[in-house]
Amino acid sequence: MSVEERLAALEKRVQTAEDQLEIIRLLNTYGPAVDSGANHEAAALWIEGGAYDAGGVARFIAPKDLIAMYESQGQIDLIRTGSAHLTATPHITLKGDAAEAVAYSFVIKREGDRWFVWRAAANHWSLVRTADGWRIKERFNRTIDGSDTSHETLRRALKS
Amino acid sequence: MSVEERLAALEKRVQTAEDQLEIIRLLNTYGPAVDSGANHEAAALWIEGGAYDAGGVARFIAPKDLIAMYESQGQIDLIRTGSAHLTATPHITLKGDAAEAVAYSFVIKREGDRWFVWRAAANHWSLVRTADGWRIKERFNRTIDGSDTSHETLRRALKS
Amino acid sequence: MSVEERLAALEKRVQTAEDQLEIIRLLNTYGPAVDSGANHEAAALWIEGGAYDAGGVARFIAPKDLIAMYESQGQIDLIRTGSAHLTATPHITLKGDAAEAVAYSFVIKREGDRWFVWRAAANHWSLVRTADGWRIKERFNRTIDGSDTSHETLRRALKS
Repeated sequence: MSVEERLAALEKRVQTAEDQLEIIRLLNTYGPAVDSGANHEAAALWIEGGAYDAGGVARFIAPKDLIAMYESQGQIDLIRTGSAHLTATPHITLKGDAAEAVAYSFVIKREGDRWFVWRAAANHWSLVRTADGWRIKERFNRTIDGSDTSHETLRRALKS
Repeated sequence: MSVEERLAALEKRVQTAEDQLEIIRLLNTYGPAVDSGANHEAAALWIEGGAYDAGGVARFIAPKDLIAMYESQGQIDLIRTGSAHLTATPHITLKGDAAEAVAYSFVIKREGDRWFVWRAAANHWSLVRTADGWRIKERFNRTIDGSDTSHETLRRALKS
Repeated sequence: MSVEERLAALEKRVQTAEDQLEIIRLLNTYGPAVDSGANHEAAALWIEGGAYDAGGVARFIAPKDLIAMYESQGQIDLIRTGSAHLTATPHITLKGDAAEAVAYSFVIKREGDRWFVWRAAANHWSLVRTADGWRIKERFNRTIDGSDTSHETLRRALKS
């Protein structure tokens, strides 16, 4: 291979590694934001018009619906009690300027001197590269409850 | 350094980063596969003849024993109840076309409207690079129960 | 861009990816070390004179105070019962030879045939690059208890 070809190949491979690390970082920003009441920062992880489809609960459009949900009394009570929105390390599939990620998420909530798993879910994120870096286009979220829809969400990690 | 030396050094370093990201991705495929009943896909994370040594329980040889175990009634009941096989981000050590990884794993199971940690384990994976990418040669798994063997499994993260 | 400029840009980008992967690996060494009684190895993740500020409990200076704490009866009982010090994948911000990381940590403890979340915390690590690789200068740790200080610790992930 020529120097030009080797440089071009390296630039592409480094971009691929960077994209994965950036998406991991993006998804790891969510928990610290929502658990500390940084509601605008949490909603800004989505593109404008992006969606959070929290199955069986609601479909929130970013940023307005998300911020309203984070500002609700239930959410305020949750973070005053003490919560950790843990996003597991995602299984990422890159497709140029789009990407897919699948991961478990858990909401761990304080109860006296212990913590318990208040919510466990399967998630599928559709992501897009923007001028400001990777952002969420849609987060599709289904509770880990043995349902077909939860299994189908997890299986999206296996399709590519 | 010459251009040739710098290119060669970069190619090696990028390979090292890619190997780590690929191994993280491989291990993160396991949970979504077993928790959704994608049993063949889960077993295909191992090389043929590879092993899952689930201490005190059994030693499963891939793919046949693994698929039989995933198809057992106990496993079917587990995923219908709702389970998350969470693999923590591994501590990886690369050795050319082989690699070692150490990480905690947890099986989080639904019980009514909560989830609990049904199993917590220490894991040591021996991995090999194949024509199709990284695969598991052996997964050595011991319950987090204070035993010497569980401590020894965790200490494998410290040897290299 | 010239070949020289492209090589220099690639070297910088690869360093950035390597730094993130190395910091993830460093923080993932902690649990396997403390949970297996490898106390000196755990303390050696800090620079000499580095600190573990475990809020409301104590401020431990590395390596001496940390080793003394790990050798305490409480810690011995904990690892004989069976514990997993799980560090979630951190949100990392690199600043040359220094870095910041924010992540949840959990201590998962055995109780009979189950495990429960014995401690959940927000963490902020200040890291430094040394001749031996990245090390912890300070780990600032606050329990997930709804307090302002826990929220402030999490918000440090959003500042850069």
